[in-house]
Amino acid sequence: MSSNILWIHCLDRAGLIYKITDVIYRHNLNIVNNAEFVERETDHFFMRTEFSGKFNKEEFLQDLSHSLPEDVSIKLSDKGKKDIIILVTKEHHCLGDLLLRHAFNELHATILCVIGNYPLLEELTAKFNIPFHCINHENKSRETHEEQLFELVGKYNAEFIVLAKYMRILSPGFVKHFSNRIINIHHSFLPAFIGANPYAQAYERGVKIIGATAHFVNNNLDEGPIISQSVIPINHSHSKIEMTQAGREVEKIVLANALSLVFNEQVFIYGNKTIIFD
Amino acid sequence: MSSNILWIHCLDRAGLIYKITDVIYRHNLNIVNNAEFVERETDHFFMRTEFSGKFNKEEFLQDLSHSLPEDVSIKLSDKGKKDIIILVTKEHHCLGDLLLRHAFNELHATILCVIGNYPLLEELTAKFNIPFHCINHENKSRETHEEQLFELVGKYNAEFIVLAKYMRILSPGFVKHFSNRIINIHHSFLPAFIGANPYAQAYERGVKIIGATAHFVNNNLDEGPIISQSVIPINHSHSKIEMTQAGREVEKIVLANALSLVFNEQVFIYGNKTIIFD
Amino acid sequence: MSSNILWIHCLDRAGLIYKITDVIYRHNLNIVNNAEFVERETDHFFMRTEFSGKFNKEEFLQDLSHSLPEDVSIKLSDKGKKDIIILVTKEHHCLGDLLLRHAFNELHATILCVIGNYPLLEELTAKFNIPFHCINHENKSRETHEEQLFELVGKYNAEFIVLAKYMRILSPGFVKHFSNRIINIHHSFLPAFIGANPYAQAYERGVKIIGATAHFVNNNLDEGPIISQSVIPINHSHSKIEMTQAGREVEKIVLANALSLVFNEQVFIYGNKTIIFD
Amino acid sequence: MSSNILWIHCLDRAGLIYKITDVIYRHNLNIVNNAEFVERETDHFFMRTEFSGKFNKEEFLQDLSHSLPEDVSIKLSDKGKKDIIILVTKEHHCLGDLLLRHAFNELHATILCVIGNYPLLEELTAKFNIPFHCINHENKSRETHEEQLFELVGKYNAEFIVLAKYMRILSPGFVKHFSNRIINIHHSFLPAFIGANPYAQAYERGVKIIGATAHFVNNNLDEGPIISQSVIPINHSHSKIEMTQAGREVEKIVLANALSLVFNEQVFIYGNKTIIFD
Repeated sequence: MSSNILWIHCLDRAGLIYKITDVIYRHNLNIVNNAEFVERETDHFFMRTEFSGKFNKEEFLQDLSHSLPEDVSIKLSDKGKKDIIILVTKEHHCLGDLLLRHAFNELHATILCVIGNYPLLEELTAKFNIPFHCINHENKSRETHEEQLFELVGKYNAEFIVLAKYMRILSPGFVKHFSNRIINIHHSFLPAFIGANPYAQAYERGVKIIGATAHFVNNNLDEGPIISQSVIPINHSHSKIEMTQAGREVEKIVLANALSLVFNEQVFIYGNKTIIFD
Repeated sequence: MSSNILWIHCLDRAGLIYKITDVIYRHNLNIVNNAEFVERETDHFFMRTEFSGKFNKEEFLQDLSHSLPEDVSIKLSDKGKKDIIILVTKEHHCLGDLLLRHAFNELHATILCVIGNYPLLEELTAKFNIPFHCINHENKSRETHEEQLFELVGKYNAEFIVLAKYMRILSPGFVKHFSNRIINIHHSFLPAFIGANPYAQAYERGVKIIGATAHFVNNNLDEGPIISQSVIPINHSHSKIEMTQAGREVEKIVLANALSLVFNEQVFIYGNKTIIFD
Repeated sequence: MSSNILWIHCLDRAGLIYKITDVIYRHNLNIVNNAEFVERETDHFFMRTEFSGKFNKEEFLQDLSHSLPEDVSIKLSDKGKKDIIILVTKEHHCLGDLLLRHAFNELHATILCVIGNYPLLEELTAKFNIPFHCINHENKSRETHEEQLFELVGKYNAEFIVLAKYMRILSPGFVKHFSNRIINIHHSFLPAFIGANPYAQAYERGVKIIGATAHFVNNNLDEGPIISQSVIPINHSHSKIEMTQAGREVEKIVLANALSLVFNEQVFIYGNKTIIFD
Repeated sequence: MSSNILWIHCLDRAGLIYKITDVIYRHNLNIVNNAEFVERETDHFFMRTEFSGKFNKEEFLQDLSHSLPEDVSIKLSDKGKKDIIILVTKEHHCLGDLLLRHAFNELHATILCVIGNYPLLEELTAKFNIPFHCINHENKSRETHEEQLFELVGKYNAEFIVLAKYMRILSPGFVKHFSNRIINIHHSFLPAFIGANPYAQAYERGVKIIGATAHFVNNNLDEGPIISQSVIPINHSHSKIEMTQAGREVEKIVLANALSLVFNEQVFIYGNKTIIFD
């Protein structure tokens, strides 16, 4: 029996933990993991409780609502595998890493399909028996291309869309439709080097460290709540190409880490930030 | 009004968080910070609750005892500054770092005195107006030296003894007397290179990373629950001396980090391990 | 035209770089990359020169010998791809990573075959069209199993054997035959936790950092010159299984990094250490 | 006898190392350390040679000029201690760290004086018997304040000016006068969070890593060749104040590291970048 996750968010007050655990206790549920966080700037309370046990979901939620203040937001989710779609362009390193993890049951997700705007990564995807669709953008208007993409994505019932080095910008409408459900890997340590060709920018600036950022996509490709970041040291001897290669190693690690956090229900989105419960 | 810390430890069961927060709620106390951990190998439950508010300590502890199972261990501590003694030998880097933090109120402790087995660090200590005592070990038996040390330490009422590169081994009796109250910085990434001259050992072995370990001292100098560790990369071009210098940078960071965790009441000792609540 | 690498090693003296570059200049060769290192404990001089240009190899080496002191050791190698065999047991993470890099021409090596002592990784290997051989060790003496392995390896003309989580110990005879040509990934930060089940050892010791070590194999599985090491932070909340999973992420990175250094001719073995030229 | 450093920079061509080491050999000098770097984008050659021995400097430079192409730039420096001035505002952490290193002969520099725009750090500086001057900026025009600063600095013959959390912007004229001789520690991982209050910016953006950058100051406070950078992980639980505290730990390490590289003559400035010879 997969365990359930209870997410609570409201203004901080005395007695919240007591009131919440009281309801859990009365429903004979077992807390497997519990964590709270109070954001002190605005005094917001966040709690994530993983519990096991048989329960009547409606009654449980009703009891919670009655016990807790009016401004509370309550969410129940479970630790089941997520259904996902992966979007790619030409680079294989993130996709390859995710396909391998998927093949060995380490992704905590089911890859429904891979969609590329080039056919280059079809061969790799096929090795792992995952459907690959190419929706080429060449000789098409941006609108037409995205409509086709949107239609294809709509045929699958994915909870998350992973941009694994998908190098095209999605329209605000597309993004809004999948609000907080699109995860992107950006090839720089955001907010440094926003925009195109961050490694060339980093090379010109002579930085001594480069990095990568995995984040939810909101309005534009380089913003939205950051989930995970990591860096590696570089030096003057790295050419632009070597910086790109070094950066790829970080990109795939950061993306895999972010997906693990999201798919295992450890990430709470609050405004433009994430609260991550270990 | 300084906040209080409640530490709870017992076998895991349903309802523990509910029962504990119930007592806190009934005493009109405010939870500032709360964290739980269940060790799944042995199913032990640990909880650390930081709370504020006026309360009758005895009644509070009595109510907790009544509510909780018999095997529970309950501890109350507060977030006040700790009184400490620092023991040194010849190296200045950790001591200097701690004196600076102390001078600017960043150590969360009061340094009662510094004791060295050489007089070398007296001048540095005096700059910061801290008493320095030299208990030289030369031409004395190990027992006599330690008796003198023990007598001197006894004159101060220190909660913690910090071995900031104190290069002599304390006897089991001394260590037992200050059980879980002596913190040592070991100049290696334990358990690698236990014993004398770890940098020379690391040099001979050709390792690519060196580190440091801060830990509570139990029976011998290189064991006891680990509090903090960190590492830095090195390479073939580092001589033994350069490795030692590089290592010192890590040592002072690791020791300062460990002391911050201990003095701010974030560390729970459980068997030969530490549970650290962020 | 692939470039050549000249390796020079002798006791340090005045004029070595001058004499070596003089010969290179006289043969009209172009230095692409040059690096020297003098080990000051024993005053040994090491130089690695990457150069391009057409040359008469025999005359070049003769001229070098004439110019340089008698104790010099001279080696010429080229930057061509290495032929390798990968040995595995049950774990897929390092093998999968290497197969992906190989498929996209990023390994700087040709994988001649994969050999496992179980058939488990055959399916993964087959996806990438690499021959897989199973030499099962069950119901066989250690000697018989290794003889079969040795015979199979002998059929391929591999320059390097990569132990990608091969969990059996090779005999001294086997190792000696492939002296400095076997590379192992050890699942700990050597020399901590030598021997079996390092993650269980690390869990028991309560360390705050775990790591992995890639090294050449000499006499036994956990020794030999270290090529690369890396670490990740862990804490009390990691179970043994979670530590193992976290460690795997480091293992594959460290192994890939070490292989890149070795296959690109950047590693000089000197005694029980490596000198690595970036 | 302190060793000398020869810096060579010109367009790359065949025979450069040979021609340079030929001159060194003819002057009976001993190479202690040698390193080359060729920047492949523009084919520029850089070489740093540390050598010991008695020599006629003029003849040596003349011989080098004759042997080398016309576009060569040649510089001789020595490994002697540098004379420096430290500028501060209110924060003590970088200054304290530098004073400690100075007191124990680890800075490879002589601190001539410390200048603050507030008197706050006078007491700390006095502990270490270093002159402290306060040039307060309040109730003065920017020009007047800087004139007074310039006049005071001019009384000392400093090779480098270290901005150890000096929070005022120096005018282009001031900076130009000390071209490549002013080193600043910037409290962010440049180029992220340029400008005022980077930790508040980082907090708002919800980044998972913060860092610090030490760089030469050119026209404005946040640009100029980067010497050293480092980062630390943070998370949602860090308040702005905690992020600032965590950042200070990185700032002092990064500044100390950068100064060690510069004072030990390991840094070559090329355009807006540094080439760092280990």
